[in-house]
Amino acid sequence: MTQTLGISAKQRVDDWLEAFERALRERDVRGAADLFAPESFWRDLVAFTWNITTVEGRDGVADMLGETLAGADPRGFALTEEPTEADGVIEAWIRFETATGRGTGHLRLKPEGAWTLLTTLRELKGFEERQGERRPLGAVHTLRKGREYGTEAAEQDPYVVVIGGGQGGIALGARLKQLGVPAVVVDKHARPGDQWRGRYKSLCLHDPVWYDHLPYLPFPPNWPVFSPKDKIGDWLEMYTRVMEVPYWSSSAVRSAKYDAGTGRWSVIVDREGGTTELTPAHVVFATGMSGKPNRPVIPGQDVFRGEQQHSSEHPGPEAYRGKRVVVIGSNNSAFDICGALWEHDADVTMVQRSSTHIVKSASLMDIGLGDLYSERALAAGVTTDKADMIFASIPYRIMHEFQIPLYERMAERDADFYARLEKAGFRHDWGADGSGLFMKYLRRGSGYYIDVGAADLVADGQVKLARGQAVRLTEDAVVLDDGTELPADLVVYATGYGSMNGWVADLVDAETADRVGKVWGLGSDTPKDPGPWEGEQRNMWKPTRQENLWFHGGNLHQSRHYSLYLALQLKARYEGLPTPVYRLAESHHRS
Amino acid sequence: MTQTLGISAKQRVDDWLEAFERALRERDVRGAADLFAPESFWRDLVAFTWNITTVEGRDGVADMLGETLAGADPRGFALTEEPTEADGVIEAWIRFETATGRGTGHLRLKPEGAWTLLTTLRELKGFEERQGERRPLGAVHTLRKGREYGTEAAEQDPYVVVIGGGQGGIALGARLKQLGVPAVVVDKHARPGDQWRGRYKSLCLHDPVWYDHLPYLPFPPNWPVFSPKDKIGDWLEMYTRVMEVPYWSSSAVRSAKYDAGTGRWSVIVDREGGTTELTPAHVVFATGMSGKPNRPVIPGQDVFRGEQQHSSEHPGPEAYRGKRVVVIGSNNSAFDICGALWEHDADVTMVQRSSTHIVKSASLMDIGLGDLYSERALAAGVTTDKADMIFASIPYRIMHEFQIPLYERMAERDADFYARLEKAGFRHDWGADGSGLFMKYLRRGSGYYIDVGAADLVADGQVKLARGQAVRLTEDAVVLDDGTELPADLVVYATGYGSMNGWVADLVDAETADRVGKVWGLGSDTPKDPGPWEGEQRNMWKPTRQENLWFHGGNLHQSRHYSLYLALQLKARYEGLPTPVYRLAESHHRS
Repeated sequence: MTQTLGISAKQRVDDWLEAFERALRERDVRGAADLFAPESFWRDLVAFTWNITTVEGRDGVADMLGETLAGADPRGFALTEEPTEADGVIEAWIRFETATGRGTGHLRLKPEGAWTLLTTLRELKGFEERQGERRPLGAVHTLRKGREYGTEAAEQDPYVVVIGGGQGGIALGARLKQLGVPAVVVDKHARPGDQWRGRYKSLCLHDPVWYDHLPYLPFPPNWPVFSPKDKIGDWLEMYTRVMEVPYWSSSAVRSAKYDAGTGRWSVIVDREGGTTELTPAHVVFATGMSGKPNRPVIPGQDVFRGEQQHSSEHPGPEAYRGKRVVVIGSNNSAFDICGALWEHDADVTMVQRSSTHIVKSASLMDIGLGDLYSERALAAGVTTDKADMIFASIPYRIMHEFQIPLYERMAERDADFYARLEKAGFRHDWGADGSGLFMKYLRRGSGYYIDVGAADLVADGQVKLARGQAVRLTEDAVVLDDGTELPADLVVYATGYGSMNGWVADLVDAETADRVGKVWGLGSDTPKDPGPWEGEQRNMWKPTRQENLWFHGGNLHQSRHYSLYLALQLKARYEGLPTPVYRLAESHHRS
Repeated sequence: MTQTLGISAKQRVDDWLEAFERALRERDVRGAADLFAPESFWRDLVAFTWNITTVEGRDGVADMLGETLAGADPRGFALTEEPTEADGVIEAWIRFETATGRGTGHLRLKPEGAWTLLTTLRELKGFEERQGERRPLGAVHTLRKGREYGTEAAEQDPYVVVIGGGQGGIALGARLKQLGVPAVVVDKHARPGDQWRGRYKSLCLHDPVWYDHLPYLPFPPNWPVFSPKDKIGDWLEMYTRVMEVPYWSSSAVRSAKYDAGTGRWSVIVDREGGTTELTPAHVVFATGMSGKPNRPVIPGQDVFRGEQQHSSEHPGPEAYRGKRVVVIGSNNSAFDICGALWEHDADVTMVQRSSTHIVKSASLMDIGLGDLYSERALAAGVTTDKADMIFASIPYRIMHEFQIPLYERMAERDADFYARLEKAGFRHDWGADGSGLFMKYLRRGSGYYIDVGAADLVADGQVKLARGQAVRLTEDAVVLDDGTELPADLVVYATGYGSMNGWVADLVDAETADRVGKVWGLGSDTPKDPGPWEGEQRNMWKPTRQENLWFHGGNLHQSRHYSLYLALQLKARYEGLPTPVYRLAESHHRS
């Protein structure tokens, strides 16, 4: 057992939890705050704040407790397993309960007090999910006259409408179904999974299987590390069926209007040749980080005689053998598309508009993810849920400090690769502060490529590289700002996607979209993520500046983990529980 | 730590394993046999014998080792966890390897030597399944010219044809796919799962969820205890898809002929409006224990003016409100159908032809299954695989001794229920030797009802009870052997199913069916399970008296567990490994 000054790690955590609980019980806000280190972070996922928020330092803790303590009425703090200690920091897994729910958390304890505390709401008392010992019986073992078989209860008027039925909408729909919240997931495609099926043929997930599980039903052990898109499509379709996610296919939301007086939305859905009105209390936009294409407007697009596609429309390489293709952009989609076109003997040029961060997939898997999401992690007892919690336990304010050393290791390991890339003229970066891919993803959701082979084609000159901005199209070429003309039969705009509040502008109105403001990003004051500091991802999975309007999405990891907290917030409102929101985030940017 | 005479259980097992391995290494058959108790059983699942067989006593062990030891070349026997000891018996989990594979096993050790030993083959060396650390990469991370995306390799001429795509065929198909054995599962229904969807509407599984998992992909934790039939149907359909089971729907096998000269079958399949010939090396009948209806022939069936259905054809109760229904039979299907008809106000009479064993579902779950398949078992560390192995570790010869006390407890717990049933004139039994439901299932696959409520209707007289044999039908009634006339608008023959070799007679020929003989049963010399003693279930999951013809099936537990051993036998043959079969079972009964 690890010892510090003769006191075991366990004893120190027990002592801290006891002092913390006593201060909370006595409503001694200052006393509780003083148990934190001067530099400290308390991240709360819905347990105390009915919000997703991080407070900093003793004053931050005191402010949050001052507002939330009476309502939360927390108690029952206890260790759930033996703590570990390294480099003067004890890490501990804990549980606790509040007036309304049960939670779990994670604590990093330094000699001067708590350094980081994560508290998460896991279930609502009296509304526990029917799993394991609580699973439904299924069969009815009391016969009675007139019983019906095999028919669902009539579809209720939904309390929640989820717009968008990709991985995010499906995961949230499954949670809401399990929690007994009447909901419907509305999606324009013919079948769940078509969101993936419709993408370019060579697409495989860039995140590995251990990172990608959906709630309740993990992938089987034979699932490939990087799933081909159609396999994920099939999985989502079957998941929707077996989890009984209420799902409307081939249904497009035309508009959504909120009536503050009644507290209900009017959602107009084009479906089955007609229109249907739904009147839910809540609307969730799960339209996808990669749902709203950024289509650049470039003079001459109307005179260009070849084909033009946003990357999301690109059908794959087969039809472009021998054609001249200009791909504008140098992130994930651009590389994937260039690689596949090269394999099919197209003449491909990539236009790099700005610097890009590239990591080799194997290095990212090993160094960046391996401790949390891998067979190695599983063998060490780091289950998916535990990995999600560890990731969530690191405050965004200091997350880059955890990330930088990992990317330094990758730079060293793949030094030859980066040297070749730079020699080929490719502008490469490691993020504004060297913190690499995850921080770029969290801050701006763009600016990187997880290399699965196509970067070598650029380094070798097999995919040609041009640098600059496309300023004009002619009948048969793309013209860059330095005057370079790139002859083209096809132009692919791999130019990314816009903020999700763009969907709010389309479906609700511009005023609401502006009031809600930009979705995603941390306010890190790095490129494409302007300050001020937000401390959490803007508008994601938490109350927004538009009552009863929510955003859900992100990668499969986030769809899995944060769907729980969003579902619990919706469930609490559905059941009429008090949900006072602490520190509703302000909106600083429109998009 | 448990101690016996100062020597720990672990030490005793270690000593035994060391002595056993030394004897095996030295090819000292007699010495190895003498390590067994005078009353002892060694059950081998494919590891030593390329068969499923149990030998008894020291002479049995010596006989088996004499035949198999040189080929198996076993070694590496070791404990995999701390043994337990109770009532003078030590239980231990072990692993070992052979010339061709790796195995696990279970040992019960008494002071006088090994009492029971189970050895099972788990994987073939060099042909390990691609799971966990060995899972496929999925994405191709080396780009090359001309690569194809998202298309399966062309369908190979199958090495194995599995006839029947219910739970058994699907589970086996998934295993073969994982093992890389070219196979196709052929089924007459339009979609996987239709085997369940087509049954009577009120049908729910009578086995609980913990017992019912398929290989690789367990049910999620919210799955109901007793799954409604359509939910299982949907699960099977999605399982077939996501596990990439090679499956031909809407395809009926018309005939199968074996050519001993070429070692290939000619299987003619009606498919897509034409016929296709497949020429596999092996044919597996997975046509279902409940696949071939027993339709009794009764004089007057041609003059009866109402409807007649086998229970497998019964569409559910809705159309029979106010009608007079006679259900012939008093097992599971009969009770389910009577209960649902009563709920829909039919006038229902059950005809009991012979004594039936009934256990209340809750008692069976708690007392009969709870230690192996339940949340309680899981909490105690008894995983599904462990439960399967524990069940497999009990030799059939003495299994009834393990079962009898459980049913004595059920009889006591539900004494009032049984008294009411008998008072109503229902003939109830506990099996020939009081060993209850599982033994009836293993011996004859019939003769019982897991009560989910309908037995009370009979006890209360709400479903009328008649006893005897139906000897004649008139225009509007069923006449029993005591002259009783039961007026009827509908007659349901809940008269069970025939031996699976009936399918061989239909598709191959009568001679082959007779040579293979009866499928199922132990030779226990109890009703419908004539002797001589077989020691294993006849013809199931192991070589038969027809070269390259196999049977697979049983309940979901058996489909899951035994599909592994059948798949490994087929894989070994596909790879050309030596598979000398020890003690191929003789055939004593034609059906």
